[in-house]
Amino acid sequence: MTKQLRFKGGIHLTNSDSKKVKPYLITKTLVPENQETPIHFVAEDLVSDKLFYRRNHFPYPAFSSSFYFLPIDGHVQNPSVFSLEQIYAMPSKTIKVVLECSGDKRELFKPKVFGEQMGKGAISQGIWKGVPLRTLLQYAGMLDHTKEIVFEGYDNGPRTDSNNVYNFTRSLPIEKALDEDTIIAYEYNNHPLSFKHGFPLRLIVPGWYGMASVKWIKKIVVIEKEFKGPFQTVDYIYYPNQENDSGKFPVTTINVNSTIQFPLDRQLLNTGIYKINGIAWTGEGKIATVEISMDGGQTWDPCKLSNTPKKHAWVRWTYTWNALKKGEYTIKTRATDTEGNRQPGKPLWNRKGYGYNAIDKITVKVE
Amino acid sequence: MTKQLRFKGGIHLTNSDSKKVKPYLITKTLVPENQETPIHFVAEDLVSDKLFYRRNHFPYPAFSSSFYFLPIDGHVQNPSVFSLEQIYAMPSKTIKVVLECSGDKRELFKPKVFGEQMGKGAISQGIWKGVPLRTLLQYAGMLDHTKEIVFEGYDNGPRTDSNNVYNFTRSLPIEKALDEDTIIAYEYNNHPLSFKHGFPLRLIVPGWYGMASVKWIKKIVVIEKEFKGPFQTVDYIYYPNQENDSGKFPVTTINVNSTIQFPLDRQLLNTGIYKINGIAWTGEGKIATVEISMDGGQTWDPCKLSNTPKKHAWVRWTYTWNALKKGEYTIKTRATDTEGNRQPGKPLWNRKGYGYNAIDKITVKVE
Repeated sequence: MTKQLRFKGGIHLTNSDSKKVKPYLITKTLVPENQETPIHFVAEDLVSDKLFYRRNHFPYPAFSSSFYFLPIDGHVQNPSVFSLEQIYAMPSKTIKVVLECSGDKRELFKPKVFGEQMGKGAISQGIWKGVPLRTLLQYAGMLDHTKEIVFEGYDNGPRTDSNNVYNFTRSLPIEKALDEDTIIAYEYNNHPLSFKHGFPLRLIVPGWYGMASVKWIKKIVVIEKEFKGPFQTVDYIYYPNQENDSGKFPVTTINVNSTIQFPLDRQLLNTGIYKINGIAWTGEGKIATVEISMDGGQTWDPCKLSNTPKKHAWVRWTYTWNALKKGEYTIKTRATDTEGNRQPGKPLWNRKGYGYNAIDKITVKVE
Repeated sequence: MTKQLRFKGGIHLTNSDSKKVKPYLITKTLVPENQETPIHFVAEDLVSDKLFYRRNHFPYPAFSSSFYFLPIDGHVQNPSVFSLEQIYAMPSKTIKVVLECSGDKRELFKPKVFGEQMGKGAISQGIWKGVPLRTLLQYAGMLDHTKEIVFEGYDNGPRTDSNNVYNFTRSLPIEKALDEDTIIAYEYNNHPLSFKHGFPLRLIVPGWYGMASVKWIKKIVVIEKEFKGPFQTVDYIYYPNQENDSGKFPVTTINVNSTIQFPLDRQLLNTGIYKINGIAWTGEGKIATVEISMDGGQTWDPCKLSNTPKKHAWVRWTYTWNALKKGEYTIKTRATDTEGNRQPGKPLWNRKGYGYNAIDKITVKVE
């Protein structure tokens, strides 16, 4: 009888709750935590905190956020320390921003490169609220000849290429630091920032790849010269050559890009009418057009944009396809932005695998 | 003040709970639900129900498990209907079994094939408890010249290659049906089967690929001839030719196989001593040896098996690697079973992408 009672419990498992089908983050590494957004299954324009991709260089930092203060010093008139209360009390800015890891789509490079093998999901979007960085810099009073602003995170550890311990630290050139959209964020999608995404304060640098948006800010330092930390001068550099460092240049702005969300690559389909859909985004300006090719790139048709393109946000696009003839189809999409940038046929191969933005491509079979 | 209170709530996020890093299922499709186990991050020998891979042909079925009965009819003396209570009261069998989807590692085939692009995680293992199928068949009394036993699941829907509606239905030859390890299971890891994994009753066919282990059994039919349903004669057939069906043969037994869990493919490592580890399994007999090559397959060393190989279960293996010299390394593993089967250098390419079991291979860089 005990057994039957246990199984009566089991019967509850057949209610609709147990049939809910959810997508999850896609685990790439656990320590440090690196997980992709299941981008093909994200229909929302505001990705939930739970499905926002996680990209870390180190294990999660230990620090007391109860006694948190933000210092700004270096080449300034008034070295300052701000409490969270002071920061929350300042005029705020709220913006919808795409964050994309510069290693997004890394697994597509040929020849293959080393590092986390990100698919197409190291990208997410949501609404960030915070204080413009320039407001804080105005309080501190930058001195003449300021060149860069350095952001040190609480996260730290050794690197695979060295046994020294480093904090994750990045700099911004003064022009980008003073951009009205560059903010020190404390809310995401109308909730306090979650710990994993940088609580209590993180930088948000719209239009730049995600490495610029330092989490768990420990301090801000204003400098007169170029910052030379390893996350600025070793990583996050495009090295176009396999054998040497010639032709290298830093990773900054997000490249114009698009991703087909439906259908999936290598999907089998019945004959019928389908709405192909996806997203497109860029780091400079706005998306101007998204085009699709159903014949492997010979001819291109415009896709329908589902919303008005905005700076820093992705745009959703659709295309209605009458898949009446059986066979294999290669589907390609290319986005063009208002600055005249267009997705190339081939990506810029680089040794560390940053900034992949070749024309998106899938193959499906109608049977 | 309201805002500060909200952020006091936020501060809880910095406790250790919020830093827990978990792997998740890897979403391949949502409807029907197909999700892989994050196999590289599974350290347990009993995969939790939550991380057990999910492979479905159709949306989850709707049926009342409160009024569930299992009919057995066809070519038998006593067509019977069993209640769950009757089945739970029969002598039971409990076995640790690997289930592997025949599409496991499908994404590795070159040229690429269509269908869910499974990585290395369409495999899980745990302890199943149920009644031996042959016990039920003895109650029903199979008549002479019985050839196959047919299992119909409650799950149904159209196929991509047809607009008819089918229930997922598969047959077993009489010999495999009478094997003492073939059971009708109602418990997994000491808990009632979860709905998603076939509650209230599913077949478990140890040693065969997962398609044989029909979930949500609706009825069992004993037949004198060969079953011809589409999941028996169209799908789950090896088609070694791209262009035609010549040379085809059915998918049955799990091929001998191994997977490297650590390091990850394309991982960057510091110099140091590492414990390479993984799993190996086979459908017939037991794993005899697992060998590793650190030089791309020129020389092979034995791995250490962490537990005594058992029929139907995977074995864990390790190998200590002194990674003292910087450079790129291709690591390969090959398992051999007691029946003399060994992983081949090249997989048997087949149009639908079943049974991939080529030597496992990753590339890492020590820097």
